[in-house]
Amino acid sequence: MLDIKITKTTNPKPLPTEDNPLVFGTIFTDHMYVMEYTKGQGWHDPEIMPYQPISLDPSAMVFHYGQEMFEGLKAYKTEDGRILLFRPDKNIERANNSNKRLEIPKIPEDDFLNAIKTLVKVDAAWIPTKPGTSLYIRPFVIATDPFLGVRPSDTYKFIIILSPVGAYYPEGLNPVKIWIEDEYVRAVRGGIGEAKTGGNYVASLAAQIKAHDEGYSQVLWLDGVERKYIEEVGAMNIFFKINGTVVTPMLNGSILPGVTRNTCIQLCKEWGLPVEERRISVDELVEAAKNGTLEEVWGSGTAAVISPVGHLRYENDVFQIADGGIGEVSQKLYDTVTGIQLGKLEDKHGWTVEVK
Amino acid sequence: MLDIKITKTTNPKPLPTEDNPLVFGTIFTDHMYVMEYTKGQGWHDPEIMPYQPISLDPSAMVFHYGQEMFEGLKAYKTEDGRILLFRPDKNIERANNSNKRLEIPKIPEDDFLNAIKTLVKVDAAWIPTKPGTSLYIRPFVIATDPFLGVRPSDTYKFIIILSPVGAYYPEGLNPVKIWIEDEYVRAVRGGIGEAKTGGNYVASLAAQIKAHDEGYSQVLWLDGVERKYIEEVGAMNIFFKINGTVVTPMLNGSILPGVTRNTCIQLCKEWGLPVEERRISVDELVEAAKNGTLEEVWGSGTAAVISPVGHLRYENDVFQIADGGIGEVSQKLYDTVTGIQLGKLEDKHGWTVEVK
Repeated sequence: MLDIKITKTTNPKPLPTEDNPLVFGTIFTDHMYVMEYTKGQGWHDPEIMPYQPISLDPSAMVFHYGQEMFEGLKAYKTEDGRILLFRPDKNIERANNSNKRLEIPKIPEDDFLNAIKTLVKVDAAWIPTKPGTSLYIRPFVIATDPFLGVRPSDTYKFIIILSPVGAYYPEGLNPVKIWIEDEYVRAVRGGIGEAKTGGNYVASLAAQIKAHDEGYSQVLWLDGVERKYIEEVGAMNIFFKINGTVVTPMLNGSILPGVTRNTCIQLCKEWGLPVEERRISVDELVEAAKNGTLEEVWGSGTAAVISPVGHLRYENDVFQIADGGIGEVSQKLYDTVTGIQLGKLEDKHGWTVEVK
Repeated sequence: MLDIKITKTTNPKPLPTEDNPLVFGTIFTDHMYVMEYTKGQGWHDPEIMPYQPISLDPSAMVFHYGQEMFEGLKAYKTEDGRILLFRPDKNIERANNSNKRLEIPKIPEDDFLNAIKTLVKVDAAWIPTKPGTSLYIRPFVIATDPFLGVRPSDTYKFIIILSPVGAYYPEGLNPVKIWIEDEYVRAVRGGIGEAKTGGNYVASLAAQIKAHDEGYSQVLWLDGVERKYIEEVGAMNIFFKINGTVVTPMLNGSILPGVTRNTCIQLCKEWGLPVEERRISVDELVEAAKNGTLEEVWGSGTAAVISPVGHLRYENDVFQIADGGIGEVSQKLYDTVTGIQLGKLEDKHGWTVEVK
């Protein structure tokens, strides 16, 4: 494992105050982590340095050919002052799966985890403590060769930045309205849908704006081949409880393998709920909504953890899920996952990693 | 139209010498063009400045969510010393179509063209003159908001850089070998395939490496839905001459509307060749190759202008096109288009724009 050089800021920023709303992704801490990659040499010279601009040649490949990967996870401060990460190994594994698809060199797992832990420790004072708040961790890789040819870059930067974030639902869990998109497509089998990379997000913007204009907060994507099977929501995976069974789209290569998705599946199984990872068509969903067997819908993701879905719109029909409120399983998952993340519930699975 | 502020370098770089091989996209001129966009204010403060690094916050949206657009065109120096651009209006139109799909604000056409002309004039000494060389022009837009939420950016930079490039085929036209890809997918209808944006290029890297490893220089993509219909080559559109008719895939939303493609279609029609823009399946192509009616295959793009294709590989079969050499129409298109670009042939269509 490489030693990280640490250069602390001589000019610390003021910490956000407790009454600050902490809008997601707008405030950054005093330090950042940067590690360089050079072909033939591998990853080298990891450094924690004062948070500062990145300077790149205008021909840097990331500006032209989208060779970029990112991850997202959170650090939490427990009531007794410990700092916990939630399943960072899963994010590191996914990052390297994304890297593989994008022809970005693999990042050694131990350097990756050490980078997160060390940076979070350096900026530990920035972890907010109000209920629902956390420190969002954004690792990302960008291709930096100053070259306009289309090929994998020979040089990269692996960077981690930190952002204190507020409660996703300041007033508690709140059901969202979801728009099922039938015009635009996010990803298709054989493409880059299962990689966490910019190209999938820019592809989602047009549909997101359309949905927002109609009063819907998120887009639910259908598959790119038949435009018939449910894939995922913009920033979340999706779950349905139909007639007592929990159903979620199987990992088919075009949807993101969510860490919270994996956690939900495992917990539901432990609670004795039947769980099916399989193809689910929008027709099956509409039918279940109509005949009253669609008991719950929720999204799962790092940002909101669990997002109960109150309404779905498909073409010109709007379906209310049960009474439009929060379902029993959604609430139990939210309480359990956040309870483990905050160290309030026993961590039977060894999901949390303490930053000491 | 906005006035461009011009700040010239006080430290010019040495010009490449005539015997320099001018590897594509590696050498950049003394100046660059930068225009800023701010929501509520629009595009503002265009400036030509010494070529220099771009400094961005690590949270700048382009590093995370792929909101980036680029174009590519060339300036040529004629034997009598004039500087010509080839159909820049088509690149500007396509750039704004890409911008629309990517939720990037439109760039006024007159500012765009004025930017190209003024920058090329400032760095005119960098336009190489050896046969086949030119000055490659790379306009691009990047999203610069320091914000980790997924939405269109409120700020952008529109940048143009210039790179003197060598002859694509230093020893004249040379047939290439093309790999028809049946595992990876570049783009799908409803996605961002027709936009010139990074996400489509990073998606192509894995297949490109596979093809290179097998001795093929480029990948020919099939459609993402049925994996049956021909789409485009990595950096080119594709044409087939089958039994006297020129066939090229129709613009279906997932392939790039090439400027050279458009030029080829128009010229072939004027020469009395029947031209069909339609769906063409790989089965039809294989059948034509087998029964001897596949007379020519060529790619069209800004970099190589025309690339004759000598061999195609699909699954485990390799097909030689005619005698594996350069077809008659390919050669005539190459001679005609480069003749017009270099001012050697009469420009009946008004395709060239002189930089005065």
